[in-house]
Amino acid sequence: MRETAILLISCPDRKGILAEITGFIAKHGGNILHADQHIDFQKEIFFMRIEWDLSNFEIPKEKLPESFQPIAEKFQMDYQIKFSSDIQNVAIFVSKYDHCLYELLYRFKAGELRGNLKFVISNHPDLKPVVEMYGVPFYHFPKSKKNKLEVEEKEIELLKKEKIDLIILARYMQILSDRFVNEFRNKIINIHHSFLPAFVGAKPYHRAYERGVKIIGATSHYVTEELDQGPIIEQDVVRVSHRDSIEDMIRKGRDLEKLVLARAVRWHLENKILVYDNKTVIFD
Amino acid sequence: MRETAILLISCPDRKGILAEITGFIAKHGGNILHADQHIDFQKEIFFMRIEWDLSNFEIPKEKLPESFQPIAEKFQMDYQIKFSSDIQNVAIFVSKYDHCLYELLYRFKAGELRGNLKFVISNHPDLKPVVEMYGVPFYHFPKSKKNKLEVEEKEIELLKKEKIDLIILARYMQILSDRFVNEFRNKIINIHHSFLPAFVGAKPYHRAYERGVKIIGATSHYVTEELDQGPIIEQDVVRVSHRDSIEDMIRKGRDLEKLVLARAVRWHLENKILVYDNKTVIFD
Amino acid sequence: MRETAILLISCPDRKGILAEITGFIAKHGGNILHADQHIDFQKEIFFMRIEWDLSNFEIPKEKLPESFQPIAEKFQMDYQIKFSSDIQNVAIFVSKYDHCLYELLYRFKAGELRGNLKFVISNHPDLKPVVEMYGVPFYHFPKSKKNKLEVEEKEIELLKKEKIDLIILARYMQILSDRFVNEFRNKIINIHHSFLPAFVGAKPYHRAYERGVKIIGATSHYVTEELDQGPIIEQDVVRVSHRDSIEDMIRKGRDLEKLVLARAVRWHLENKILVYDNKTVIFD
Amino acid sequence: MRETAILLISCPDRKGILAEITGFIAKHGGNILHADQHIDFQKEIFFMRIEWDLSNFEIPKEKLPESFQPIAEKFQMDYQIKFSSDIQNVAIFVSKYDHCLYELLYRFKAGELRGNLKFVISNHPDLKPVVEMYGVPFYHFPKSKKNKLEVEEKEIELLKKEKIDLIILARYMQILSDRFVNEFRNKIINIHHSFLPAFVGAKPYHRAYERGVKIIGATSHYVTEELDQGPIIEQDVVRVSHRDSIEDMIRKGRDLEKLVLARAVRWHLENKILVYDNKTVIFD
Repeated sequence: MRETAILLISCPDRKGILAEITGFIAKHGGNILHADQHIDFQKEIFFMRIEWDLSNFEIPKEKLPESFQPIAEKFQMDYQIKFSSDIQNVAIFVSKYDHCLYELLYRFKAGELRGNLKFVISNHPDLKPVVEMYGVPFYHFPKSKKNKLEVEEKEIELLKKEKIDLIILARYMQILSDRFVNEFRNKIINIHHSFLPAFVGAKPYHRAYERGVKIIGATSHYVTEELDQGPIIEQDVVRVSHRDSIEDMIRKGRDLEKLVLARAVRWHLENKILVYDNKTVIFD
Repeated sequence: MRETAILLISCPDRKGILAEITGFIAKHGGNILHADQHIDFQKEIFFMRIEWDLSNFEIPKEKLPESFQPIAEKFQMDYQIKFSSDIQNVAIFVSKYDHCLYELLYRFKAGELRGNLKFVISNHPDLKPVVEMYGVPFYHFPKSKKNKLEVEEKEIELLKKEKIDLIILARYMQILSDRFVNEFRNKIINIHHSFLPAFVGAKPYHRAYERGVKIIGATSHYVTEELDQGPIIEQDVVRVSHRDSIEDMIRKGRDLEKLVLARAVRWHLENKILVYDNKTVIFD
Repeated sequence: MRETAILLISCPDRKGILAEITGFIAKHGGNILHADQHIDFQKEIFFMRIEWDLSNFEIPKEKLPESFQPIAEKFQMDYQIKFSSDIQNVAIFVSKYDHCLYELLYRFKAGELRGNLKFVISNHPDLKPVVEMYGVPFYHFPKSKKNKLEVEEKEIELLKKEKIDLIILARYMQILSDRFVNEFRNKIINIHHSFLPAFVGAKPYHRAYERGVKIIGATSHYVTEELDQGPIIEQDVVRVSHRDSIEDMIRKGRDLEKLVLARAVRWHLENKILVYDNKTVIFD
Repeated sequence: MRETAILLISCPDRKGILAEITGFIAKHGGNILHADQHIDFQKEIFFMRIEWDLSNFEIPKEKLPESFQPIAEKFQMDYQIKFSSDIQNVAIFVSKYDHCLYELLYRFKAGELRGNLKFVISNHPDLKPVVEMYGVPFYHFPKSKKNKLEVEEKEIELLKKEKIDLIILARYMQILSDRFVNEFRNKIINIHHSFLPAFVGAKPYHRAYERGVKIIGATSHYVTEELDQGPIIEQDVVRVSHRDSIEDMIRKGRDLEKLVLARAVRWHLENKILVYDNKTVIFD
């Protein structure tokens, strides 16, 4: 696989942005592989993801930010530069439900998700054998109402020490503190087992059953301070009918949850997501 | 098309219900065409829709309720008897949006919806030409905050005079009074332009856009006193992305709304819906 | 609505194409609204759709082709320049099925499809009243095996006289001659009532029923000499089960057919489709 | 979980079948939990799946066939009696692709699939560690063109010795002989990686890419002598676009394949499938 650079940009929309960026890449010998652009005409914001082959690109990777800086300033860009060779470090948080965990373990192992899965953290010991079966370290951090913040500090310490770039809450049934969320802004992906914004909070399948909906869903999103209110990354749905008991909904929902979470994780690891205004732009 | 009888039943679940009903039909020479049964195990309620050919059935239509009464009493049934030859009378309420109206006019005309479309009522005169193009009477009932209840009385009077069995709110932008709703319990079908219970109330597409959802939906339901809280009949969804403006969502949503509404109307007219506990059982 | 120019390009993939095109637009004061690019890495072909605001663009519309020519030559581009102000002329061909026709008539009337619907041609007189109800001219061209080619010549003559840019076969049950197809290469959109390439040819719903599939579909495509083998524009599907008779499938399929056809027509009229290698790139 | 009996019936459609069956169950004290009936009006065949609670049923399990026999004869029924307590024995066949295997191993372990997974057979040794990680025996049966039939005899011997009721081909890339198929009529479920009948045979994703389809699918079906022509159990689809390379299609397809296969296996193990006329009736 050839090495590539990826530029993720958002800035006020103005004439000539695209010409400037593509001109810069072309001038230095870069071959553009993907260019995806989007304008929010309501808010007049320009978004872009552009990826180019580095094989004959004249600017060395470490000099790229410096070289690009003048353009960024000219257009007041908010931007990130990523390289396909930079593999992100990942941690999974889990409680007792195991279907999302199995799915992620398999996909990391199979190479479908490009990331270093460094460890799994849980507030329960139950899933230790599963995790270790895949040769991944497992940390048990029991939590009570009392010690929650303390324990979180230890988790943050571990996550920082291991330079974790992405935290996946794979049906982790705990609410994270604002302090925690703040440390990892747009770096925590949660899976919620409803079609948000319907059924925010606990027991969404029970409430879906009570309401008599004909379709249920799952939603992956970045975690923010407000419960289930973060930027939505992906959603999917499945039909249900009066024949489906709550147990059937939970079963059908599991299949959604694991796919919807896996898609979000893949896009994040491939640097395909831009967050703005509590929403996401997915350059798929 | 052969004439059929349809029995819609709900009652406490007990042994022998099915045997008793099917025994009754068989004994009198009825040939069962469709039998669909459902048990809500949580609440222990038995539901059934059974349809049989009347060609060699010994009991004349008008005597059927009387003959069935003992069974109904034995099992404390809540039941309805319908005949395929009884065509329901239908009225459509509409404001200015015309996509659902066109869809319904076409489907009634094409015979896909089996009902007598008696007239269309609107609080605006705009859609009169369309309705009359299809040869359907159009009544203009202008409404203000002040005269709303008065006008409703006139509407009710007309609806009763014409023996209307089903009222379709085809993007009718008015909220009906409790008095009105009460008169036509489980006989008013509304289309709401969101995936309920997400985005109850006004401007759901705008709010879906704001929230950054990845899927939008439409919901047809029976109207109850509480806004957008009635029993859901049908829902459907379509994918959206950051590329979709509010206008795009509205456009995509229109295609959902008309299909989701038409499906609900069809099931209602074919006596395939049972309502209980603010939910629907659809015997499709 | 502001006036825009649209450039649709395909050419061998090389470095610097994007920079050259966007540089050209920027240099002359064009504000890019949409830019969508795609590379077929297997065949090394570059595709692009780029749309820009003409309000402050220095080059007058009629000079644009000439000004762009040097870039086109440099990169061996196959390209088209379109203007949002150029409304395409459209003709619909229909036989006896009316659901797609109604759908299109409504969408043209509602302005959702931007095109001049000039007339409807049919080999049967049946749908004349419908078409005329919408104020659209209707031409009846009866066809027999014998006179088919002759009649086609008359149709071609009419189509040319009226400068038709797009022909929509809205369940037109006739196969067009190679001569006809050749005259309107990539300008004839057909709706086939199956999920191609399954069930090419006649009676697809009957064959789907026979095969016991669990999902049926519809396909809109450009017409080529080979039956149902042209470039696919859009497809959609719906679930069926053993409960669905052939009549149910036909009914469910109608809803697919009209939506799938309408989407294809919209994309075509908005210059969002590039055809290559018997496939389509849809810049949606 | 209460023990239940399940009756799967098909017979010529006649008056009184339903009354006779439900009367039989009621007379002997059975409480019906699910009753699902279907009539193929074209061929005049009656189908039924009926499940009842055995707790107060007077006829002992071993006597049930004998007691039911007179009814079966009267209506010329083709029928099977199953008990929820009878857990089926299952064998998985696999080659080198592991995604379906992992999915099935997880679902059997999690108890979502009710069956005794007795062993996994493969023509390659590669997946031995995975299978043994789950504590399931793994048999390696290398196959060449020469020894294929011989090896199959050994497989059949093993399958019979272990009383295997269901064989799952989890992307097993070998074609089974007629002799093998005949031994396990309607007991072998295969997953085909296309939306059948499109793309029968090898490399369906490549051919889907070539054809430029906008939707791809997967199909689970019972294996018959003719390649990919057996009764379809379940299908599902996912959208693709010009942006999707063959690799993307294969990736998206994997998620379909494993779900579509798992659903078919679940229905089979829960005795919800009736096969007739190379089609399936799914009593879901």
